[in-house]
Amino acid sequence: MKITHIEHIGIAVKSIEEQLPYYEGILGLKCYNIETVEDQKVKTAFFMVGQTKIELLEPTDEESTIAKFIEKRGEGIHHIAYATENVNEALKEMEDKGVRLIDKEARGGAEGLRIAFLHPKSTGGVLTELCEHPE
Amino acid sequence: MKITHIEHIGIAVKSIEEQLPYYEGILGLKCYNIETVEDQKVKTAFFMVGQTKIELLEPTDEESTIAKFIEKRGEGIHHIAYATENVNEALKEMEDKGVRLIDKEARGGAEGLRIAFLHPKSTGGVLTELCEHPE
Repeated sequence: MKITHIEHIGIAVKSIEEQLPYYEGILGLKCYNIETVEDQKVKTAFFMVGQTKIELLEPTDEESTIAKFIEKRGEGIHHIAYATENVNEALKEMEDKGVRLIDKEARGGAEGLRIAFLHPKSTGGVLTELCEHPE
Repeated sequence: MKITHIEHIGIAVKSIEEQLPYYEGILGLKCYNIETVEDQKVKTAFFMVGQTKIELLEPTDEESTIAKFIEKRGEGIHHIAYATENVNEALKEMEDKGVRLIDKEARGGAEGLRIAFLHPKSTGGVLTELCEHPE
C-alpha cells in the first residue's frame, strides 16, 4: 500500500463549541465544516493545517464510541487517519499480513471519504483509520 | 501565530524495534532517523508521511515521562506538534491569551528543532508541542 499523507487527526472533545476559542482564537485555525455523522453518533468539526485536517469529534449520544472514550480516558487525541488510494486493496493486503481489522471493507465516513479502521491491537495501541478520497 | 503544518505526531511505544514491522512492513513507511534525546530519556524513530513525521518515542529509563505515560495509559498517541515560524513569539502571544505553558521558552528538541510544550489543561486534553525549524 502507498500512504500519501496524514489525512486527519481525530480528537475527542466534550463540546466543539467550547473548543473553538482554542482552535480558532489561539491556534489561529479556521473551522471550515461542521457535520454530523449519524451512524457514528458524532458531530465533527474540521480545520485544515497544511495537508492534514484536525477533526474534532463530539458525541451526540452517550452510547457513542466517542462518549465512551472520553468517559474512560478523558478528552484527547482519538485516532490518526492515513490517506491512501485504495482502501479495500490496502485492507486486503493488511489482512494477508495478519493485521486485525475493525472494518473488513471501506465504508462511508465524514466529508464523503471511504474509510476503514484497523484494530489498535495490531497498531501499537494507535486507533488507525485508512481514508480514500472519492474520484 | 501562524501554523504552517503538522510537524509531527508523537507516539509512545515500549520498543521501537518491535514497532518497525508495522510501520515499515505494513504501512510501507521508511524509518530515516533514530536518535536518542538524553534529557528526555527517550529514543526516537522518525518516518516521513507527506509533510508530517511520525515520531515513535521509546523510554530509555523508567523515570522518563514516556515510561510513565505508557504505564498509565498504555502505548498510543502521545502528542501533536505544530510547525510555526517563531516559537518564542507564539508562546508570548499564547501566554497573553491565558494559555497554560509547560515551557515558557523554546528549548532544543530532536532533529535540531526549537520546541515548547503547551499544557493539556489549556488544549482540551491534547498534549501540544510547537516547533520551529532552525534557519
